[in-house]
Amino acid sequence: MQNQPLLLSSLLAHADRFHSATEIVSRTVEGPIHRHTYSDAARRARKLADALARRGITQSDRVATLAWNNFRHFEIEHAVTGMGAVWHAINPRLIPAQIAYIANHAEDRVLFLESSFLPLVEKLAADLKTVGLFVLMVDKAAMPSSGLPNLQCYEDFIESGDENFVWPEFDELSASSLFYTSGTTGNPKGVLYSHRSDILYSLSFSTAHSVGFSAQDTILPMTPMFHANGAWGLTYVAPMVGAKLVLPGPMLDPASVTALIDGEGVTIAAGVPVLYGKLLQYLEERGRGAGSLKRIIVAGSAPAPSMIEGFERLGVSVNHVWGMTETSPGGTSPQPPRRFVHLTPEEQLQRKTMQGQPTYGMDLKIVDETGAELPRDGKSSGRFMVRGPWVISAYYRDDKPLLNDGWFDTGDLAVFDQDNYLQLTDRAKDVIKSGGEWISSVDVENIAMGCPGVAEAAVIGIPHPKWEERPLLIVVPSAGAPANPSAILSFLDGKIAKWWMPDDVVFVEALTYGATGKVQKMELRRRFADHYSAKRIA
Amino acid sequence: MQNQPLLLSSLLAHADRFHSATEIVSRTVEGPIHRHTYSDAARRARKLADALARRGITQSDRVATLAWNNFRHFEIEHAVTGMGAVWHAINPRLIPAQIAYIANHAEDRVLFLESSFLPLVEKLAADLKTVGLFVLMVDKAAMPSSGLPNLQCYEDFIESGDENFVWPEFDELSASSLFYTSGTTGNPKGVLYSHRSDILYSLSFSTAHSVGFSAQDTILPMTPMFHANGAWGLTYVAPMVGAKLVLPGPMLDPASVTALIDGEGVTIAAGVPVLYGKLLQYLEERGRGAGSLKRIIVAGSAPAPSMIEGFERLGVSVNHVWGMTETSPGGTSPQPPRRFVHLTPEEQLQRKTMQGQPTYGMDLKIVDETGAELPRDGKSSGRFMVRGPWVISAYYRDDKPLLNDGWFDTGDLAVFDQDNYLQLTDRAKDVIKSGGEWISSVDVENIAMGCPGVAEAAVIGIPHPKWEERPLLIVVPSAGAPANPSAILSFLDGKIAKWWMPDDVVFVEALTYGATGKVQKMELRRRFADHYSAKRIA
Repeated sequence: MQNQPLLLSSLLAHADRFHSATEIVSRTVEGPIHRHTYSDAARRARKLADALARRGITQSDRVATLAWNNFRHFEIEHAVTGMGAVWHAINPRLIPAQIAYIANHAEDRVLFLESSFLPLVEKLAADLKTVGLFVLMVDKAAMPSSGLPNLQCYEDFIESGDENFVWPEFDELSASSLFYTSGTTGNPKGVLYSHRSDILYSLSFSTAHSVGFSAQDTILPMTPMFHANGAWGLTYVAPMVGAKLVLPGPMLDPASVTALIDGEGVTIAAGVPVLYGKLLQYLEERGRGAGSLKRIIVAGSAPAPSMIEGFERLGVSVNHVWGMTETSPGGTSPQPPRRFVHLTPEEQLQRKTMQGQPTYGMDLKIVDETGAELPRDGKSSGRFMVRGPWVISAYYRDDKPLLNDGWFDTGDLAVFDQDNYLQLTDRAKDVIKSGGEWISSVDVENIAMGCPGVAEAAVIGIPHPKWEERPLLIVVPSAGAPANPSAILSFLDGKIAKWWMPDDVVFVEALTYGATGKVQKMELRRRFADHYSAKRIA
Repeated sequence: MQNQPLLLSSLLAHADRFHSATEIVSRTVEGPIHRHTYSDAARRARKLADALARRGITQSDRVATLAWNNFRHFEIEHAVTGMGAVWHAINPRLIPAQIAYIANHAEDRVLFLESSFLPLVEKLAADLKTVGLFVLMVDKAAMPSSGLPNLQCYEDFIESGDENFVWPEFDELSASSLFYTSGTTGNPKGVLYSHRSDILYSLSFSTAHSVGFSAQDTILPMTPMFHANGAWGLTYVAPMVGAKLVLPGPMLDPASVTALIDGEGVTIAAGVPVLYGKLLQYLEERGRGAGSLKRIIVAGSAPAPSMIEGFERLGVSVNHVWGMTETSPGGTSPQPPRRFVHLTPEEQLQRKTMQGQPTYGMDLKIVDETGAELPRDGKSSGRFMVRGPWVISAYYRDDKPLLNDGWFDTGDLAVFDQDNYLQLTDRAKDVIKSGGEWISSVDVENIAMGCPGVAEAAVIGIPHPKWEERPLLIVVPSAGAPANPSAILSFLDGKIAKWWMPDDVVFVEALTYGATGKVQKMELRRRFADHYSAKRIA
């Protein structure tokens, strides 16, 4: 057999050759909708790669971006990886000191940035030790004056490259891109993907037993490209299958998202539950359907049953998948196993909130504290471990051994039921220990999310004089809903074990979500640490 | 990233772990239906691999089979490839001398055979120079007496292995299996697949933009496992996604196939057009639907429009794909490109008879006689060339350079239309040259197949005193239909160019199909070589 290396440059080359007229549609940070085709993007990516090569960027050099989802970000991703350099997508929501830290840690040589981030970068520039070139992702006409040294306009920069640039061939194990994941302690840690892992993951994600995509799809990644692997790999998958790609820029409010769905015929969107909650409410309030939208990919945290039911009423199927930056990020299939056809609708709904089964390539297990595999019996809960050809082996420039006998510890706790179906019960650090028993914050949150008047919910364990920890339910009420703790507790009553019942409900204006869509519980735990002891005293 | 090699042993291991209770259902050559699960098959494959290892079979040794599609064949396929040996599936329809030739050429060390092939193998045994062990794929109770030396019963043999056998890890470029393809001249040539090419092909075949399979599917491979790559890779795809697998044995008559569809809830079947033609007629004659069947994979040759329409009337979508043994065998996607949504139903139907667009990984082009790429303009016809990570680089034990600048010449002639959509116009050797112009036999056949009373059709070019060659239409009439040449020619009139009109129609009882479902035209050309010159004289 022939043995071409699996390289990311083949994705856009394939789309250019066989889906050349298919569109990439972007809402730019400046406002207007931009459209071009895979053929345009491929030509511009070749010019960009050549321009970078002329500036001395070579294999494995890191090239960073600070940008929302748009066509230039897509071109940079494919140009940088295609030429063998490493794309480092920086999360602009990190605090400035962390942005400087990771840019220096990665030794980024070039930084592409959108105009909205120019003030930030102007302030940071002196701290960015290795960046020798800044490229502002704007039209020539929109180029502002700036004190930033070595600042170029993207369109000028691209013009300096030759469209006849030929993608180089190299080892498929070469690094392709770098994403930092913010732990709860210490500095962010880098996850370095390879061309091989990206192609295998994208193939897996495209299989019909995973989410599955075709040229008939129009994909809207609401998850940012600076999250795990270029909007969860959707910026690879779209050219792989020839799907139309709709890049929403920074505007993820439900009105903007709905306008894109309606205007571009979006069939599948991808994002975290909190975005879908707002979208569902918006559609329901207007008494309208979901238009062309047929499926939503939900990840980051589990969708509440009420959200799944809401979308299904609108004819939208909910594809809940589990993953993390360290798994490229895909891990599980949203498709039901065969025997689920025999379950009642209620049982099927409950299964959709679970994390499910792995796609081929991924292996999953739970282990006890000695590392021994636990049975898949619906009862045993253990540390959730994964392995596979798109799972991390070590953090970037970190020589600490990461794997246990080849397996990566996700930091989650999980149970497998008798159908081998995975349910994450909690982050290991978020689980609540009350009177020697464990309480799953995730389960209580899921049920609370179904309570009328509750828009968002988080459950944390906080110190309790008698029980070690007790759960506290923190709620963002729906617009106009009264703050009524006893109504919410009555709603929970009978749906969870008595001793899982939160001892109190507090109301907040908003919850803070981390880069991967999970509620930042550490901050909540700090803020409400004294809640029960204070109450007791009062 | 982790870097596990892509090995076939991971397929059944994955199914065993996450789809353990899903069934493999076989109709045995002895008659009864056999059922077991992926868990059973995985355990028995491990025992079988251990039994083979105890008999001295090691990495890269060839182990042959002479068998129909059934559970033991499936176990052998996965045991042999999983342990690192090479599975050689012999086509029992080859003439005995060719079977001996390829078994010796491959240096097969073990031959597994079904009972129906015992008389054949008894006769051939003395010519099989390297086979040291014969294993008959039957229950102990069905073991016949035989003069064959070193003959063992499969179930006894499996009992000698340990179910705790651990699949070895080795280089993914290692050979996995060997299939001989019969050219029109000379001895059959071997196509040697690798673990990497098989896994990449199976992933590609499973993507939603290709055929796409999920755990909800029940797959019926009517194409034999001794054809390209284990029933076109379906015996890899099924455990990869956890689909139920229905193996039909040798009984492919429409009544047997319909009984399997109804009894097992088959959702997708795979085979060549001639089988589907009979199935469609059977269902239509009974005025019934297709039951659980939702999709059919059609390959080997293009389905006629009338067949596509017939199945679509029954609610079955026709997934026409192109491939050959040398391409593992998958090459093109059955999914329409985006813009086909704007075509009329007639135009869409016509596109479904075409070979379409490649799936990601495959690249396709047409070239002129100098090797220069021809434009994709709907007019230029050239040699159809392919490349990709599951395309052959050289025939087995054949040191002739096979590739042209990395591309494999399929031997077909093709045109790409303006949508980059592929149409094979003919085998290079089957094209008809009449008065200096080319006539596509495939086009005339497709239209003739739509004529009432025509069950099968072939068009060949035969010598003609004036025009060099002229087309002759050879027809197998439908049951009870009259042999009426002028009615058929009237039907063609106006549907094809005047000078493409066959000068005559002859009727035969049956056509002979080659291993890949294509009509054997060489034999027809010999038989009817004098048809026009004889007529002229008469």
